[in-house]
Amino acid sequence: MTTTDQWVSPPARIADPDEAISADELRLATRNHGMPLEGLRYDVTPPGLHYLLIHYDIPDVDAAAWRLRVGGHVAHPLQLSLDDLRRRPRVTRRVTLECAGNGRARLHPRPISQPWLDEAVGTAEWTGTPLAGVLREAVVLSDAVDVTFTGADHGIERGAEQDYRRGLPIAEAERDDVLLAYEMNGQPLPPQHGAPVRLIVPGWYGMAHVKWLVDITVLDRAFDGYQNNTSYRIKHDADDLGDPVTRIRPRALMHPPGFPDFQTRTRIVEHGRHELTGRAWSGRSAVNRVEVSTDDGASWAEADLDPPPSLYAWQRWRFTWDAAAPGRHVLRVRAGDDEGVQPVDAAWNRQGVVNSHAQRVVVYVR
Amino acid sequence: MTTTDQWVSPPARIADPDEAISADELRLATRNHGMPLEGLRYDVTPPGLHYLLIHYDIPDVDAAAWRLRVGGHVAHPLQLSLDDLRRRPRVTRRVTLECAGNGRARLHPRPISQPWLDEAVGTAEWTGTPLAGVLREAVVLSDAVDVTFTGADHGIERGAEQDYRRGLPIAEAERDDVLLAYEMNGQPLPPQHGAPVRLIVPGWYGMAHVKWLVDITVLDRAFDGYQNNTSYRIKHDADDLGDPVTRIRPRALMHPPGFPDFQTRTRIVEHGRHELTGRAWSGRSAVNRVEVSTDDGASWAEADLDPPPSLYAWQRWRFTWDAAAPGRHVLRVRAGDDEGVQPVDAAWNRQGVVNSHAQRVVVYVR
Repeated sequence: MTTTDQWVSPPARIADPDEAISADELRLATRNHGMPLEGLRYDVTPPGLHYLLIHYDIPDVDAAAWRLRVGGHVAHPLQLSLDDLRRRPRVTRRVTLECAGNGRARLHPRPISQPWLDEAVGTAEWTGTPLAGVLREAVVLSDAVDVTFTGADHGIERGAEQDYRRGLPIAEAERDDVLLAYEMNGQPLPPQHGAPVRLIVPGWYGMAHVKWLVDITVLDRAFDGYQNNTSYRIKHDADDLGDPVTRIRPRALMHPPGFPDFQTRTRIVEHGRHELTGRAWSGRSAVNRVEVSTDDGASWAEADLDPPPSLYAWQRWRFTWDAAAPGRHVLRVRAGDDEGVQPVDAAWNRQGVVNSHAQRVVVYVR
Repeated sequence: MTTTDQWVSPPARIADPDEAISADELRLATRNHGMPLEGLRYDVTPPGLHYLLIHYDIPDVDAAAWRLRVGGHVAHPLQLSLDDLRRRPRVTRRVTLECAGNGRARLHPRPISQPWLDEAVGTAEWTGTPLAGVLREAVVLSDAVDVTFTGADHGIERGAEQDYRRGLPIAEAERDDVLLAYEMNGQPLPPQHGAPVRLIVPGWYGMAHVKWLVDITVLDRAFDGYQNNTSYRIKHDADDLGDPVTRIRPRALMHPPGFPDFQTRTRIVEHGRHELTGRAWSGRSAVNRVEVSTDDGASWAEADLDPPPSLYAWQRWRFTWDAAAPGRHVLRVRAGDDEGVQPVDAAWNRQGVVNSHAQRVVVYVR
């Protein structure tokens, strides 16, 4: 690289206090997309509505020629074809995935990156074979610390050229619910979700579920690569190493009631009783309560909450709202799990990650 | 509605000359999405990569209870179930769809609406039954002028509350290639693409392909509803009625070479020869030429162009570029059909529609 580095791949930046969305952010927003919130009506998100974040390009991987290397600190390195994986034990798990940056564009000031509002989420039925079995076959050596997962996607980020690569602690990698997934909702993985094979780490934010997986390497040390040590950190200033982003914090989202204005997405709701519905999830434990506010957070009332269909899959909630007073109202919703409840307002951090502040839905009752 | 109308559903607005992307535009961009340009590698766009524009919400239509009403200026009104349509003659057509607003966010000044860059396109195999046969069965009266198509989606737009409804001239509606489509790429239509049934009008911009279709009404006059007479008009000032948006103008897009920077999407390309590829389409005739510029439009050279797999489906093109000089380069591409060639620069109009200016791809050769 040359002195044009900064032009091609500029350093991280926080928006000026009143800065609107930049051309860089728009380029990302037109490619990646959230789940339109009507998608909350489905137990399993239909293909094409699931959120999508792609760091670089969708690579063109030939499934027939594809091989997965398993090596590093193991006794028996492996090389597996897609058929090899398909012959192994087959498991399907319903898992909710959420982007670590969900809610970023609601922060003040706003970290400049993919400008998510609330919608970077989706739930799918992932089918594949347990990673644990593959690691057992490779015989992980006893002093293993981290396992890295490398995708076929290649790019440059903040000046660092790389194949997308993430490390996961060995104890997480050896969990029996972690999958090498080759199907999504009963169909082969679509290209944008990691065809032919991706990692699924139930409970973790999206960055851990490496797509277009080509390499698994066991390390006898902590992985210090870009996506673990530079990106996906909860940092408060540029020099702060910060804490790693790991499991999904509890969040509830509401399917906005009524119908929208095209341009502002403000909702029109008829006067009377409405059943508000939505989903809630957490990567730490089952969600154990959902609360709704119909007065912009001044007061909260408990919603009815369904049990989880399985751990790490979103749970349905319902709340009856009597929309008695015409005019503008702000609805909010928050979830809690065994470790705590969603903050009402956003807690700022430099990368705009793990922002689980309570959704605001502006409605106009007539 | 009350005096809060303007707040809920503001009038049309053009951005200030230096205005960045607004919160309203971002709300649309996080829901709707373009086709990541890597999608140009596929003859048929995989589900979830096809562009998507939804005016209001994705409605929840029960396919079993769904009925299509066919009425108005006909001798024999019909009411058809999904099974009724499936029992009729079955046709599959490959059709390229493009949003009329594609390219809007590249205009100066920028009309405030869905802020598309270049990617609001996709090509699918649509399966359904010809509309013409249904109209023949209903016996359209001889003085029919327009046919309207109404969707189950409901919203408000610039103060006008409406079900999404578009009119089409009777001669277009009676074309033998217009479909009532119930499958996309061999699968039932997904919710976001109009389940259970949508209209497909090959050659027309996306607004004509009404999703979640519930009503077909034949009129003995021109339809003067919002989506024909207020929206989707090529206008130069607010008082101008403008010309209607109809068929897709020719456009070529390039699959950007090399690999990207995450944040800026600028491309890094290795020094040497590269095969540039992409697709070109037109809703007026087959594309008959594609030209590439490697010097930001100063000079143009002809690309190799495949014939169309069928009329109104995109055509593949190829061009060999010798990336000899390191540094920044701007690649451009344009297509032509029997009626003319793409303009190099955008021709402004108030709604930011039919902007078929030539794509610019910024690359850095190393």
